[in-house]
Amino acid sequence: MPRVRESILLLSEKLAGGRSLAMLHGTSSTADFTPASLLPLQGLVRADLEEVNQLILSLVQQEVPLIEQIAQHIIRSGGKRLRPALVLACAHLCGHTGDRHIRLAAAVEFLHTATLLHDDVVDESTMRRGDETANAIWSNQASVLVGDFLLSRAFQLMVGDGSLPVLKLLSDTSATISQGEVMQLMAAGELSTTQEEYLQIINAKTAALFSAACTIGGLITERPDTECAALAEYGRSLGIAFQLADDALDYAASQAELGKTIGDDFREGKLTLPVILAYAAGDDEERAFWQRTIGHGEQTSDDLATAQANIQKYNTLSTTLAMARSHAEQAVNQLSFFPESPTRDALAQAARFAVERRF
Amino acid sequence: MPRVRESILLLSEKLAGGRSLAMLHGTSSTADFTPASLLPLQGLVRADLEEVNQLILSLVQQEVPLIEQIAQHIIRSGGKRLRPALVLACAHLCGHTGDRHIRLAAAVEFLHTATLLHDDVVDESTMRRGDETANAIWSNQASVLVGDFLLSRAFQLMVGDGSLPVLKLLSDTSATISQGEVMQLMAAGELSTTQEEYLQIINAKTAALFSAACTIGGLITERPDTECAALAEYGRSLGIAFQLADDALDYAASQAELGKTIGDDFREGKLTLPVILAYAAGDDEERAFWQRTIGHGEQTSDDLATAQANIQKYNTLSTTLAMARSHAEQAVNQLSFFPESPTRDALAQAARFAVERRF
Repeated sequence: MPRVRESILLLSEKLAGGRSLAMLHGTSSTADFTPASLLPLQGLVRADLEEVNQLILSLVQQEVPLIEQIAQHIIRSGGKRLRPALVLACAHLCGHTGDRHIRLAAAVEFLHTATLLHDDVVDESTMRRGDETANAIWSNQASVLVGDFLLSRAFQLMVGDGSLPVLKLLSDTSATISQGEVMQLMAAGELSTTQEEYLQIINAKTAALFSAACTIGGLITERPDTECAALAEYGRSLGIAFQLADDALDYAASQAELGKTIGDDFREGKLTLPVILAYAAGDDEERAFWQRTIGHGEQTSDDLATAQANIQKYNTLSTTLAMARSHAEQAVNQLSFFPESPTRDALAQAARFAVERRF
Repeated sequence: MPRVRESILLLSEKLAGGRSLAMLHGTSSTADFTPASLLPLQGLVRADLEEVNQLILSLVQQEVPLIEQIAQHIIRSGGKRLRPALVLACAHLCGHTGDRHIRLAAAVEFLHTATLLHDDVVDESTMRRGDETANAIWSNQASVLVGDFLLSRAFQLMVGDGSLPVLKLLSDTSATISQGEVMQLMAAGELSTTQEEYLQIINAKTAALFSAACTIGGLITERPDTECAALAEYGRSLGIAFQLADDALDYAASQAELGKTIGDDFREGKLTLPVILAYAAGDDEERAFWQRTIGHGEQTSDDLATAQANIQKYNTLSTTLAMARSHAEQAVNQLSFFPESPTRDALAQAARFAVERRF
């Protein structure tokens, strides 16, 4: 059971302590009233998430073997299951008592995995979270087509649920994600991309799905618009915090950290906020460095160290993390629309975890 | 107006006569009570189709320029608009009087264009209907992402319509199409693929969308299940006829024919029915030829002529066309569930056109 193994890893890592992103930006998560942790959220949704995993696997077991192989590969190596966990927890928060959230959590995870498959093709990636990517193992062609299949399965699940408001939310979100991906493709290598433009991109390509995941619970329980809007904003802010922390981790984490390898984004020439800010602040020589390494993708083995030094010189990692933290706090603030409960606390801790995590 | 120009081309080609596929398999379409023509169908839906075209273009006009450019490219070079025309005509046949069919015809065309964009990436095609493909002009990456966007727009349109039966039909169809595409990818170069396996593939990747397009009219007018099933079967049979005729045209049409270039499928190493049947019937030397040219994609400039000679030797073009014609007749037979009307006649003629066409 990959999920169980993952939880154990999470727990052991938590117990082991160690350098976290919190230390990088000079704060300690334990100093806050609400600590940064994914464990309460994971504990709350454990049984539901097991049902989601079973449903997901059952839905890719069918007669075309290549679909089953690729779907299982991407789903089994699927990381923290943060998006379905948020669907489940926000449904609990809104008092949902049926099992519609199981199906819709699976739909959200299918949308996400479809995006991952296509992302890896677009980025020409060969590794994801320490595993070979599907396109590296089976070909770009197979990844494109199986991504389409998973996207279709996501819509089949939503149609099976039968809620038009949920279908509207998720079809709009799916369009927004691809708009964000196209914007990112257009901005690739464009170092003059502004912070505002970058936030618009990650809002679309990452935060929109987090936002939708959290809103579903409000829709299926027919909560008032203000509460649905608060859930949407909680998810959106958490998503932006999550992406900005991810951007920072790529230049900050030590190589031994779980899953994440330092410098992946740099080597793939990805334009992320620490780079955008360092380029904007840099002198002519530094800008020429970024143009060569990120703009034109011409890199030598010394370049990552130079990039890190540049980023440190202008404190752009701290700036990125400060923004991430600010978004995480905005997420936590939205939860005040709901009465205090273990679920609300778990969601607050998850928002802080998005920033303080080391993986 | 590309649609008007297309109709004029169709009309002038019709008036000019000339060698048609009917002559290749020794029958004359004029000998039948119902002639083979797309003109009555196109005439009936002209005004509606213009609305569909306007809706389609309005839905890709938005702030991400690359999406708009690629979507307009693929939509403007979009051929005969057969699928949306079938949505419109079958809705008329069922007595639909509102405008829901406009939106749903656009949704079907979006699903189709999304498939075309991804197909060209998977096939590594550089030309489609005499135009450069989007992936050749803008990159595979852009085609993958804009295909995702168009697929999402299709679902947004269906959700806007709000019919869960239509959503179920089209999300199931979308999953089936990608299953068919994956099956085709797995069968690529596998000359031992059987006729039955091949029919299963084209049933999924091509005929399913034709079937869904025709069924929509029955669903939105809440016709009895027997009529919806007849529409589904009409579309499915027409779709198979259409694909088999397409397979035959690639080895039969003369180079000057509208849009279609001879030997495209051969040069791309596509496994189609004329090849499958010729391989099955061939001797060792002929099988070695197919293994080299289609199995391994190693071709010289003389090979197309050899392929055509082989196909002629075993009459596999005639066999393919006979099967196509049989499916077209099955399509026509399904129409007997509906009272005689100009729309029913137009649909019968369109089914025969799928086989008798020269482009």
